[in-house]
Amino acid sequence: IDNPTHGNQAYSNLNEGYGKVLRYGAYSEEVLDKLRWINGTLGPVLREALEQSDGLDIRALLAEALHMGDEGHNRNKAGSLLYLKLLSPLIAKVVKDEGVEAEVLQFLGDNALSVLNPVMAACKVMADAAHGVEGSTVVTAMARNGTDFGVRVSGLGDDWFTAPAGIPEGLYFPGFTSEDANADIGDSTITETAGIGGFAMASAPAIVAFVSGTPQDALNTTLEMYEITVAEHEHFTMPPLEFRGTPTGIDIRKVVELGITPRINTGIAHKEPGVGQVGAGLVRPPKEIFEQALFAYAERYQL
Amino acid sequence: IDNPTHGNQAYSNLNEGYGKVLRYGAYSEEVLDKLRWINGTLGPVLREALEQSDGLDIRALLAEALHMGDEGHNRNKAGSLLYLKLLSPLIAKVVKDEGVEAEVLQFLGDNALSVLNPVMAACKVMADAAHGVEGSTVVTAMARNGTDFGVRVSGLGDDWFTAPAGIPEGLYFPGFTSEDANADIGDSTITETAGIGGFAMASAPAIVAFVSGTPQDALNTTLEMYEITVAEHEHFTMPPLEFRGTPTGIDIRKVVELGITPRINTGIAHKEPGVGQVGAGLVRPPKEIFEQALFAYAERYQL
Repeated sequence: IDNPTHGNQAYSNLNEGYGKVLRYGAYSEEVLDKLRWINGTLGPVLREALEQSDGLDIRALLAEALHMGDEGHNRNKAGSLLYLKLLSPLIAKVVKDEGVEAEVLQFLGDNALSVLNPVMAACKVMADAAHGVEGSTVVTAMARNGTDFGVRVSGLGDDWFTAPAGIPEGLYFPGFTSEDANADIGDSTITETAGIGGFAMASAPAIVAFVSGTPQDALNTTLEMYEITVAEHEHFTMPPLEFRGTPTGIDIRKVVELGITPRINTGIAHKEPGVGQVGAGLVRPPKEIFEQALFAYAERYQL
Repeated sequence: IDNPTHGNQAYSNLNEGYGKVLRYGAYSEEVLDKLRWINGTLGPVLREALEQSDGLDIRALLAEALHMGDEGHNRNKAGSLLYLKLLSPLIAKVVKDEGVEAEVLQFLGDNALSVLNPVMAACKVMADAAHGVEGSTVVTAMARNGTDFGVRVSGLGDDWFTAPAGIPEGLYFPGFTSEDANADIGDSTITETAGIGGFAMASAPAIVAFVSGTPQDALNTTLEMYEITVAEHEHFTMPPLEFRGTPTGIDIRKVVELGITPRINTGIAHKEPGVGQVGAGLVRPPKEIFEQALFAYAERYQL
């Protein structure tokens, strides 16, 4: 993914779907077969298809998806279909084998997370463009590794501020409970960093069937995030809030002053290796990491 | 379209898109070329593709689209992409020519009304199933021909009750104003008859950019329609109203008693032949037709 305004790039792999997937720790012949298919078939088809185009405008796609009930992190149903819409004529042009073509279109259409990975890379190029601004207290990355939760701040160079990650609260796939949950994991919080995901939940009332809560909770989540952010997004607007821009740019000063931490939509991984994703829900980063960052800021700028 | 529960069928042509289209009165070489392409290419491709399947479940598609910001009449963005998702692997299997295939996928994906015509036929089989119930005061069809607005009632046989159609209030495409508008036209009000469209506007806050008003107006439209309907839809639910079913089954007694007429989302045709669609907006049927129907009911059932 390119950021044409700032000239930076970011990358992501291709999304495997829900459930038994490597990125949540699943590991079996089924998982490996799918990865081999992604590597040997889906990847090359997408590369050839994209070579037929001038590139896809992921920011415009996201803006449209937010008007279609997505929040861009845990709900990418509309975005994945917009992605299919842009890709399918290109795929038709480059694939000769009808069986392969049908398989690729079926996979992209059925996987409601198809576009999540390009979206994460798009959020990464947006957030990276905000990094390294002298004096800035805006968060430019949040990430978890299943053990710790870390944030990086624009005006604080390459330092990460970390503390133990929490366990998400949410809904579990049939057969699993909160007993099975691992601590919060993954880099997908780059979406909230860029002003979508949990921050745009007001746009996605139907998501509560997947992450728990009520549509009013979804609305309140977005409203709360305005308290700790510095801007309303110019491109990402939410019809249920009269087309108000999403809350964007977490300010560590506001987080510490108000004691309000960011709200994150996330998947839940099983704590045992080999199982995979077992649910989805909501989580907040530990408050300490914002306090650590603010102390580091005071030290760095001699306040 | 089949109604598997009641065994009835309904039909629709294929949707041409927005703007210069025959169904709004446009007539030119461009319009005819598109119709020839629909007849000679799109139609046969869709027939062959559908023959590869067990049919598409349009009711399930609509239910999902209502969770993705559509109301199913004037906004079918998500529904049309769900339609593309179901069709694209089937199309890949049956079309040999890559150029034709790319063209068909591009047209289906770019036309945000692709699924409207199957949806109208689906609403028709639902509404027809409710027709002919002895003693019922539920409306089973509403339609306009650019001059008159008519309704048909379940317990009143094949009689239509008609009066002059109004002019929709709405937003106009660039270069057109309300001076250009024809009186309300089309059979698409079968969607409101079946409990979607204007009745489901609470699900589609983004539609106000197309038909005028605010997201709160959209919510109020749906809430008002509960006043004049007999049921909440079992399958069509709206996330912004805590997944409440759409108001379904207009009761002529309630319309007359409360003086509240149905709210309809509609396209606006130019009043001169040959131009086509010039906008989209909201309209209500004339109150008299419900009064006429209620008088006929009293007479028919000797009340």
